[in-house]
This record gives sequence, structure tokens and C-alpha cells, in this order.
Amino acid sequence: MTYCVGVMLEGGLVFASDSRTHAGVDNFAKFCKLTVFERAGDRVIAMLSSGSLAGTQAIVGLLKQRCGAADGSPNLWTARTMFEVAGLISDATRDVERRDAAYLPSEVVFNASFIFGGQIRGEPPRLFRTYAEGNFIEAEAGTPFLQTGETKYGKPILDWGIGKHTSLSEAMKCVLLSFDSTMRSNLSVGMPIDLVGYERDSFKLAVRRRLEQDDAYFNALSRGFSEGVRTVFGQLPEPDWP
Amino acid sequence: MTYCVGVMLEGGLVFASDSRTHAGVDNFAKFCKLTVFERAGDRVIAMLSSGSLAGTQAIVGLLKQRCGAADGSPNLWTARTMFEVAGLISDATRDVERRDAAYLPSEVVFNASFIFGGQIRGEPPRLFRTYAEGNFIEAEAGTPFLQTGETKYGKPILDWGIGKHTSLSEAMKCVLLSFDSTMRSNLSVGMPIDLVGYERDSFKLAVRRRLEQDDAYFNALSRGFSEGVRTVFGQLPEPDWP
Repeated sequence: MTYCVGVMLEGGLVFASDSRTHAGVDNFAKFCKLTVFERAGDRVIAMLSSGSLAGTQAIVGLLKQRCGAADGSPNLWTARTMFEVAGLISDATRDVERRDAAYLPSEVVFNASFIFGGQIRGEPPRLFRTYAEGNFIEAEAGTPFLQTGETKYGKPILDWGIGKHTSLSEAMKCVLLSFDSTMRSNLSVGMPIDLVGYERDSFKLAVRRRLEQDDAYFNALSRGFSEGVRTVFGQLPEPDWP
Repeated sequence: MTYCVGVMLEGGLVFASDSRTHAGVDNFAKFCKLTVFERAGDRVIAMLSSGSLAGTQAIVGLLKQRCGAADGSPNLWTARTMFEVAGLISDATRDVERRDAAYLPSEVVFNASFIFGGQIRGEPPRLFRTYAEGNFIEAEAGTPFLQTGETKYGKPILDWGIGKHTSLSEAMKCVLLSFDSTMRSNLSVGMPIDLVGYERDSFKLAVRRRLEQDDAYFNALSRGFSEGVRTVFGQLPEPDWP
């Protein structure tokens, strides 16, 4: 399983992914699911991968290879908008699917998908997700975050904590606590967490951090929140029925 | 879908269920999923139903019918322990499954299950759940709550809020907020909520309440918690990284 979150705020973007991959509970491994394309002053694009590692690595590999092509064909460094970026990720997804899907066992579905977003000079920050079929959706004010993978345990805390006016710093805390909830309940989502924060119109990452198992800040956040919530429970109104 | 929760505390028990049933999104209805067997001074048994309504109503109907049998065969009023109660619910589940399962369409699985618990004089309070196969588990100190149905959205808040020393009143608030989280995210879980609270060694229900749509207390709880959590976010430590 996987857990990835992308958040779009008025003030910027947050992306986070766990890094557990597995083929059955007896074959766990750690792989970074975050890829960043950053050119200071011009663009920042972050991508989070969900689905079979062979598929997502192939797609990211193809996107990187196309960045270096000598024929001037469109790529992530030349795209003029995030909508063009979405088209390029979609094309690469379909190219890998065409190449690989016929070789997969009949019970295995090609399932590579991405949450991605960023800002290209001339546009506001934008946030998208693709599906395995290569089609995609864009987040908007009514839906300030997108999730993939094991989404349910970590959703209520995002609903409580994230609105478009939330600060980058509070949104990062909230996203980390969403991972905390998820990891308490699903062993197939695991540390380390890769986290990036981007401030609108800065065209460079504000934060890029890998939080390892036993990260002191993560543990302080987790403990502080549990204690805070218990205090909130104690202060909630009593029912007027016996 | 359904959402049911049973909680076992040192001080008592809490049970709650939503009341939405549906056969597809275009066929919603309200049915009470809570059944209580209460004889003051002797026993309180509460049951929450999950699964197809035809199955769960048949099982509850059979259990009630057996309570009135003249031949003195064991029933919920004569059971000496909650373990015997679990056996009776298990037997009734298997009896209904034997009667009905062969007539269900091949793609429909017999799926009636129950969270149930209570206290019979001579025993401490106990909490169980059956599976559709009729086997069952009992909660213990390490797992102070059991859930069925749409369990994921509402689990983190129970993890944060409920321990064995939690008071009955705080546990009821926490359970209601667990329903709040679930209903925000899954339309197939819906009001009204049936809630009961039982105080250890009282042998009568302390609270039995149906919370309808727009219940003033429920809304105050939901709003108070959201605001409280946002305050907690604001007070959490800032990272020591930029």
C-alpha cells in the first residue's frame, strides 16, 4: 500500500508520501515515491507515485529521459503550463501501459498514478492527479487536497485542519498527522515520510525533508496532538440528556 | 453501508449505530440497527446489526422468538454468561444462513454480523462481535472498541480518545465524533444515530437516545471539536528545520 497527499493553499503547496513498497507482507522495501523537477526562478514540479513500483519508476524514468532529448520535443522543462505537464505525465503513463500491460499476469491491473503539482512562471500554483488510464483531474478551491492509496484513516484530520487559508506551516503539520493516523492503522504505510513545502511565487522549494523512523519532531507532533485532542474532548459540552 | 461501534471501558459500555440501509444509491431507507434486551437488576444486552437487513432482522427475530419458547430451551433471558449469549447469536446466525443462503443470487454473500455486549449479574461487562460465519471474538483491554461497516474514517478519533479509563460521558462524545467523521466522508452512513450508554454494575441503561438529523447537541459537539482541533494545530511545535 501507499499513502500520498498533495495540498493546495492560497500560500503554496505541500506534498508528502510514505516510502513503503511491498509484494506481500513478507517482502517490504523502502523506495522514495517523491520526484522533484526544480529550476530556481522558473518552475517547481513535485510528483508522488502510487501503484506498482515497476510502472511508476518506468514512467518517471521516461519523463526524465524525455527531458534530455535533443529533438526539442515537449518535456517537463519546456512545458509552459501545469496543464501541459499533466498531458506529458498522461502520455508517459499510456506509453508505459502500452509497453508493459500485455505482459502482466491476468489478475494484475496496471495501476500507476500520480499526484503532482507545482508552479511554472506565469501561472498560479496548481495541483493535479492522474489515474492509471492517463486521464486526470485538477484540484480547486472546494477540494484543497488530493490523496491516493490508503486514504481513509488520514482524511478526517485533513478535513478538520486544511482550508485554503491554512498557512504552509500548519498544513505541513496537519499532513504529517494525517500520516500518523494512517500508519497507526495500516502497517503497509510506513516511514520514512518524504515531505516538501512550496511557497507561492517563490519558484524554489521552501522545505524538502525526509522524516525517518523515530524522527524527534514527528514524535513530538504526534504526542502533542493526541494530548491536545484529549483536552478538547474534556472541554466539549456535556449532553443535556441524562 | 453501515457504521457500528461498541466500546468497553472500565466504567461501562457504549454502543452506537447509524440507521441507513440501502440497495443502491437510489434506494435509501432508515432502519434501527440497535436491539436491547434489558431486565433491570439482572442483565442488559445491546446488539448492533451489520449486513443485509433481511438477514439481520431474521436473526434478531429468531432470538426474540426463542426468548418466548415454552420448552425452556436456552435464550437471551436465561443465558448465564455473555459467552452463552454469543453462542446463541452465533446459532441463530447459522440457522438463518442455512435457511436463506441457498436462495440468494450467486454474487450475494450472506453477511449478517453483530457487535454486542452487556452485563449479566455475576460477570463483568463484556463486548463481542460475531462474523457472518457465526464465529466470534471478544474485546479485551488492548482493544477497547470494535467497529463494523465503514470503519476507517472514524477509527483515528477512537484511537486518540478512547482508553479503558475514559469516562462513559467522554467515550460517548468520542463515539459521536467518530460518526461525524464517517458521515462527512461516506454518504451511505447517515443519521439518525442510535446511542446507548451503560454503567458497570447498574443493570439498567444509563442513556438511550436517538440523535436525529440536525440534533442540536450533535452539531455543537461537531463544531466544538473542529474548532478545538484547529486550536491544537496552532499550538503544536514548529519544526526545527526551515
